[in-house]
Amino acid sequence: MQSTRLEHDFLGERAIPDDVYYGIQTLRALENFNITGIPLHAEPLFVEALAHVKKAAALANRDLGVLDPALADYIARACDRVAAGTLNTHFPTDMIQGGAGTSVNMNANEVIANVALELMGKRKGDYDFCHPNNHVNCSQSTNDAYPTAFRIALNKKLVGYRKALELLADAFAQKGEEFRNVLKMGRTQLQDAVPMSMGDEFHAFATNLREELLRIDDSRTLIREINMGATAIGTRVNAPTGYAELVTEHLRTITGLDLVLAGDLIEATYDTGAYVQLSGVLKRTAVKLSKICNDLRLLSSGPRAGFFEINLPPLQPGSSIMPGKVNPVVPEVVNQTAFYVIGADLTVTMAAEAGQLQLNVMEPVISFALFTSISYLTRACHTLCDKCVVGITANAERAEQLVRNSVGIVTQLNPILGYEATAEIAKEALRTGKSVYDIAVVERRLLTQAKWEEVFTFENLIRPHFIQ
Amino acid sequence: MQSTRLEHDFLGERAIPDDVYYGIQTLRALENFNITGIPLHAEPLFVEALAHVKKAAALANRDLGVLDPALADYIARACDRVAAGTLNTHFPTDMIQGGAGTSVNMNANEVIANVALELMGKRKGDYDFCHPNNHVNCSQSTNDAYPTAFRIALNKKLVGYRKALELLADAFAQKGEEFRNVLKMGRTQLQDAVPMSMGDEFHAFATNLREELLRIDDSRTLIREINMGATAIGTRVNAPTGYAELVTEHLRTITGLDLVLAGDLIEATYDTGAYVQLSGVLKRTAVKLSKICNDLRLLSSGPRAGFFEINLPPLQPGSSIMPGKVNPVVPEVVNQTAFYVIGADLTVTMAAEAGQLQLNVMEPVISFALFTSISYLTRACHTLCDKCVVGITANAERAEQLVRNSVGIVTQLNPILGYEATAEIAKEALRTGKSVYDIAVVERRLLTQAKWEEVFTFENLIRPHFIQ
Amino acid sequence: MQSTRLEHDFLGERAIPDDVYYGIQTLRALENFNITGIPLHAEPLFVEALAHVKKAAALANRDLGVLDPALADYIARACDRVAAGTLNTHFPTDMIQGGAGTSVNMNANEVIANVALELMGKRKGDYDFCHPNNHVNCSQSTNDAYPTAFRIALNKKLVGYRKALELLADAFAQKGEEFRNVLKMGRTQLQDAVPMSMGDEFHAFATNLREELLRIDDSRTLIREINMGATAIGTRVNAPTGYAELVTEHLRTITGLDLVLAGDLIEATYDTGAYVQLSGVLKRTAVKLSKICNDLRLLSSGPRAGFFEINLPPLQPGSSIMPGKVNPVVPEVVNQTAFYVIGADLTVTMAAEAGQLQLNVMEPVISFALFTSISYLTRACHTLCDKCVVGITANAERAEQLVRNSVGIVTQLNPILGYEATAEIAKEALRTGKSVYDIAVVERRLLTQAKWEEVFTFENLIRPHFIQ
Amino acid sequence: MQSTRLEHDFLGERAIPDDVYYGIQTLRALENFNITGIPLHAEPLFVEALAHVKKAAALANRDLGVLDPALADYIARACDRVAAGTLNTHFPTDMIQGGAGTSVNMNANEVIANVALELMGKRKGDYDFCHPNNHVNCSQSTNDAYPTAFRIALNKKLVGYRKALELLADAFAQKGEEFRNVLKMGRTQLQDAVPMSMGDEFHAFATNLREELLRIDDSRTLIREINMGATAIGTRVNAPTGYAELVTEHLRTITGLDLVLAGDLIEATYDTGAYVQLSGVLKRTAVKLSKICNDLRLLSSGPRAGFFEINLPPLQPGSSIMPGKVNPVVPEVVNQTAFYVIGADLTVTMAAEAGQLQLNVMEPVISFALFTSISYLTRACHTLCDKCVVGITANAERAEQLVRNSVGIVTQLNPILGYEATAEIAKEALRTGKSVYDIAVVERRLLTQAKWEEVFTFENLIRPHFIQ
Repeated sequence: MQSTRLEHDFLGERAIPDDVYYGIQTLRALENFNITGIPLHAEPLFVEALAHVKKAAALANRDLGVLDPALADYIARACDRVAAGTLNTHFPTDMIQGGAGTSVNMNANEVIANVALELMGKRKGDYDFCHPNNHVNCSQSTNDAYPTAFRIALNKKLVGYRKALELLADAFAQKGEEFRNVLKMGRTQLQDAVPMSMGDEFHAFATNLREELLRIDDSRTLIREINMGATAIGTRVNAPTGYAELVTEHLRTITGLDLVLAGDLIEATYDTGAYVQLSGVLKRTAVKLSKICNDLRLLSSGPRAGFFEINLPPLQPGSSIMPGKVNPVVPEVVNQTAFYVIGADLTVTMAAEAGQLQLNVMEPVISFALFTSISYLTRACHTLCDKCVVGITANAERAEQLVRNSVGIVTQLNPILGYEATAEIAKEALRTGKSVYDIAVVERRLLTQAKWEEVFTFENLIRPHFIQ
Repeated sequence: MQSTRLEHDFLGERAIPDDVYYGIQTLRALENFNITGIPLHAEPLFVEALAHVKKAAALANRDLGVLDPALADYIARACDRVAAGTLNTHFPTDMIQGGAGTSVNMNANEVIANVALELMGKRKGDYDFCHPNNHVNCSQSTNDAYPTAFRIALNKKLVGYRKALELLADAFAQKGEEFRNVLKMGRTQLQDAVPMSMGDEFHAFATNLREELLRIDDSRTLIREINMGATAIGTRVNAPTGYAELVTEHLRTITGLDLVLAGDLIEATYDTGAYVQLSGVLKRTAVKLSKICNDLRLLSSGPRAGFFEINLPPLQPGSSIMPGKVNPVVPEVVNQTAFYVIGADLTVTMAAEAGQLQLNVMEPVISFALFTSISYLTRACHTLCDKCVVGITANAERAEQLVRNSVGIVTQLNPILGYEATAEIAKEALRTGKSVYDIAVVERRLLTQAKWEEVFTFENLIRPHFIQ
Repeated sequence: MQSTRLEHDFLGERAIPDDVYYGIQTLRALENFNITGIPLHAEPLFVEALAHVKKAAALANRDLGVLDPALADYIARACDRVAAGTLNTHFPTDMIQGGAGTSVNMNANEVIANVALELMGKRKGDYDFCHPNNHVNCSQSTNDAYPTAFRIALNKKLVGYRKALELLADAFAQKGEEFRNVLKMGRTQLQDAVPMSMGDEFHAFATNLREELLRIDDSRTLIREINMGATAIGTRVNAPTGYAELVTEHLRTITGLDLVLAGDLIEATYDTGAYVQLSGVLKRTAVKLSKICNDLRLLSSGPRAGFFEINLPPLQPGSSIMPGKVNPVVPEVVNQTAFYVIGADLTVTMAAEAGQLQLNVMEPVISFALFTSISYLTRACHTLCDKCVVGITANAERAEQLVRNSVGIVTQLNPILGYEATAEIAKEALRTGKSVYDIAVVERRLLTQAKWEEVFTFENLIRPHFIQ
Repeated sequence: MQSTRLEHDFLGERAIPDDVYYGIQTLRALENFNITGIPLHAEPLFVEALAHVKKAAALANRDLGVLDPALADYIARACDRVAAGTLNTHFPTDMIQGGAGTSVNMNANEVIANVALELMGKRKGDYDFCHPNNHVNCSQSTNDAYPTAFRIALNKKLVGYRKALELLADAFAQKGEEFRNVLKMGRTQLQDAVPMSMGDEFHAFATNLREELLRIDDSRTLIREINMGATAIGTRVNAPTGYAELVTEHLRTITGLDLVLAGDLIEATYDTGAYVQLSGVLKRTAVKLSKICNDLRLLSSGPRAGFFEINLPPLQPGSSIMPGKVNPVVPEVVNQTAFYVIGADLTVTMAAEAGQLQLNVMEPVISFALFTSISYLTRACHTLCDKCVVGITANAERAEQLVRNSVGIVTQLNPILGYEATAEIAKEALRTGKSVYDIAVVERRLLTQAKWEEVFTFENLIRPHFIQ
């Protein structure tokens, strides 16, 4: 039979299994919130950040004389243990929860109090010696501790995401080099346009994604703003003078992040603008990744009845019925990840809009949406990079053949012959199936063989210079 | 100098230009709401429906003895004049407005009162004889009159939309017939799959859209539910006994629509579920139209470096710089219309979610979103049908060539040779560029010439039968 | 050291741990797709449905003579074992995956083949005797087997969801009865409107949600349409004559669902309209639940500085810093669930729009979005019902006090005094703080004491009758 | 009878009314695109920007010797005339159009050519002297000229929007000052929390919106990047050496904007990231405005059965049936505008995702969505500022009363009595209806009268200091 201890809160008394570090309020949260089945510790950085916040608060409270130094020290050591990650399973509350994160905050308060009690040689639940609210939560409210921990966790999580995106961009850039001299038809509106270098096409993917790195940096700048010391609604009620600034300083040291205290704590306590901004940045990257994957799928379409300019590395048989079929499964999974992220951005938008008065109670679903989006995007970037981009090869011969055979090269005669004469050539070529050369040089003698050769060198097709 | 009359409400007195039929409350609305610049009368069916609602109310009030028969008759005749459409410009309030439609309802009350006054030989503004609130709005509230008129207008607007969609589906079906014997490569995941009839492909577009007609019919069933007689919040306060049922009956007669009175008037007065449902139906059709247009653009890609199985009718030069280029401009504009409609569906969603307690005050933006979506989709269907689909031609020879040249036909050997042997043939074909025939029949002798000919007849490629 | 067996596909050979029932293609999928970390078997109904599809196919193949009866029997028995759920962990591929579900389908083919082999007394991997593609997948493609299984799973999953929603609606209806004689102020636009019964308010919530049950039924009608026998792209290639109809018949028997074969198999193979429709229905319910929860939170706001007409059952302390605070945590978690579902609907929309030509390759993310949305909504309904609605109590005295003290009751004088005189009373009451009674009866003598008493009985306030 | 001239393009010949400056390609666009009914010139800044782009191109072409100086001068003068705005009605093409803006670009080319011809003393249509493609469009493509003009127009449009938002923020800040000493109850999760200053609440709205000004500045930085000289797909085909840099320089001078040439012209020609970012910024502001308006509506709810802490200026009678009712119509219209903008952001997202290969053909609907969103938001800000915020008054007495009467003040006893004892007081107060003072000081004697008075001064309630 499982050993239990009794705990109480102002709603009553409950038995808690003695081997868990959390207490009665976490137990209630487990009973009340059962939506996703995904526990808070699915995001270990969040647990770590909560421990960091609680430690910084203990130190600031000690410095300001509102917490006994010995007790503060026990709390700080308990926080270190939690931050180390070995107690993560003691953070079991559902990712989506009511109460604006109070259950998460109380979960942290309870676990840390009980760990501290054990460090003191006391038994779990002996809250007289270390109380979740009075001591661990001292000078804090859920409404400052929770969003601060959330922002710290996001900040750290973005580091890994940024790295994954950078590696992907680098892989595209490398292909840009590799395909530098592959001549291919550029297409606008899916119609043949003018020739280009396949290297430039891949390099543009790199450029496109590298811009996202800067946007991530912008987001990290916004989410480093915290509201510790705001307490319940930003009035600093129950926080000692100087506490907000001091706890921020401690937190900077503990996390190594360049955190700043918000200038308007009332506003900072309810505002979710930084999350909306970050979500928008993730969405923008998702849009770009989806566009790029659409392109990769188009360019590799075929093998016989498509564009077939490139080959994606074959990863698995593509069909249970069509032998030999291989599909662009990695771009496809990235497309789908992008659609998830775009949906999650809407979740964030609606949750942000639903904030009322002095608090946005919908922050937990914002955290769920952002953490999953960043996780999924990070994995999608690694997958796309490692399983697809690095192994892409060019069908250079076919790609050049499509150019040589095209009508689109006619554009380069525009400065020489004018738009209308050139359009006539194009129209004739399309109508008859003849080549541009045959019409322009042989039949109509609109330009000399020498001029033709000057204009249509490989070099001038792939990287055109102005010839009049 | 413009002649004016003085009107007052409980906020004060204002001068109204004497040539307008609306009164002080409409004037205030014009001053207060200036967001879109698009007036209510941009949707003439809404104005007509308001007149029908007011007429039905006048008749019911007369029948129940709460409105003098002579006065009711003047009001009814005034409603007929408004319904005829010649006074539409007297409904100038902005499509997006606060007040849950009160300004729209009062606009109707004022215009009808003033028209009735003139019919009586009185002067505009002599509201003692016919009062916007006491007489025209008798037994009504904005909260029943406005949504009822909105639903009637939607119902009628959907007729034209449904017709446009049906014509488009018919045009696709006709192409389905026309292309019945065009053999082409089917594609899954943009990779060559197995052969098919281009007629079946176009017929599927028709099937796809015809399903939408049924969904429109579902929506029309939902939006025919009205809440006349609910008055302010559904308690029927200030409406005489029997009024709700009677006014509904009159409205059925006047509009020719099979309107039904909601069973729970409290709920019906705040619920926007029918709009959400309708918006979802429009969105679904938009999604399908966008998918179809994506397909048309893919299938017509080229002319030399794309799929190029079909030709869209050329409508305009496609480029200011690339002579002879022609683009699939109609599918493109339909794609964009679809994106608008999908965005508008989100607007409807958010507005519906924002309803509070006994009323959803956001109904005006819902009306704006739905009316524009239906208008745009209607025009998009006509455009796609008339300017594109009816003129599509097939490149039958090329399409068949792509099949004959493909590896995908190998699938039809599956039941004969088994998946693994067949996969080997496919792999070899792709590696070497050889044809399936050469490998399977000539080199490996896995099947006889006769069997090959049995399997790969034109008829069996385009409409396969099981051969083991 | 773990024992392994060697398996091969046309891309090569791999070692598979001998204790797993899946084979090489599932292994590749595990390596290729790592996005959500949520395995397919998180949705056990999907695994069960796959087994049902495979069994039906085996039986139809047997009936039509394309599968040896003994082998078909082994496969059918293997399917029964899988359907029983004990092998669920052998379905580990990520919920979001490329390949349009090929990995899911092959996972099922491999597990069933290996279970069948064991039933035959053979060893796993001896595919000569029972081959994943040739036998288990006989007459099928991913493109018919996967969506069919998906639809069956959805159909079953909706049963539990519908029940949860119905229980919630019933709970509201019961409160409607309970609060029948609680008089309260109705509010429009958050402004005091006219009196009503709190019972009617709660009954309207029931009405509002019961309409959703009908919409779920509509969705179930649409998603019961399947495309078995379509094979790769709807041309029925490689399926014996009569197979499509026969396998559908078997599947009806096995699942107990009223499945129907699609009339246009080309269209049915790529169309995702039924998912978009279902997602829209879920979204609509989410919108309604969110609106209702917003109302519950408004009505219980306070306790001293809010509306405070109702009490939600206290579930947990509401604040780490504010003692005694109790929050509406259950409505809050339901709001957040709604935002998730609305976001997921966008994911479905985008995935549906991204379908191309003969297949929509984005179906896996659609399945992920729909399964999670239905799960979350089901749990949210149960939570809202059990932890909140059934325990709601009314503050009847305060609610009535707010009515008696209001200016809004003035509306009931409208038919007696006319709009303008009544508006004057209201204006005066608001300006001076006096009661409507004092102004109308005592000071201005606009109506007699007797008339006042006739109009403002409790019964006429809570369920007004027309008095002129 | 209307006089016409004949024009031709490579699709044929058409008669053009002689009084219009546009030509055959614009005529075709008018016939092909009829979706919104809203013409391009509804956004006059776009027409102006097109003229600026064309002028800069003419000057650069002149400088580089590819355009005759006299002709370049005529074109530049024609551009000046167009930029002046008097010819706006000659830009009639529908805002949503296919062709990636080719019709817009050709519309500009045609109008400018014909104006230049008249300046030369030639007749409209005499394109030998000044040709839309060869001369006006010289060294350009739609694919650089159109997005460049779009970005310039956006940039200028944002100036007015930013100003409107700033004025609104300032109005909130001023109310922050005005209400500095109004004591009120802070609320979290709609439940009474702790006291605060109403001035701080309004000041936080100002802070909240002022952050948006910085985000607008970020967006303006991104959209100042242009791709002139990229021509068709970014390869600079048909543009003379040095042209891209030179035309950018001219454009900087002409527009007064700090435009920069993109570093990767291939990428810049298809990328729509800057629009997605800007749309996200608009959405974020919309989310904030909606939240603020929700708050204003909550705080002004009542007058008798709501929070009623503030009064919004009455603008119009609020009901056609409820006399004296006044509604928060301006916040309501702003909410709805926000929903529109959030929907339009989704339109932009989908359009951006739909870009393929070397161009995003969906840019016109992006322009439609962004221009309308900025217009609507600008008007919403002015409306909210002028018609609502500046006239808000506080019900200071009632607001303070709600605080004095609350249980929430108990939090300030937390540091003195500890969480559990304080929670006991709160619980008792809520159960019995007694005041915190009575329980804590009179009955339980947990603190002295003097301590009570020290803690609960007005100053310490409205701007709390730490008291232990």
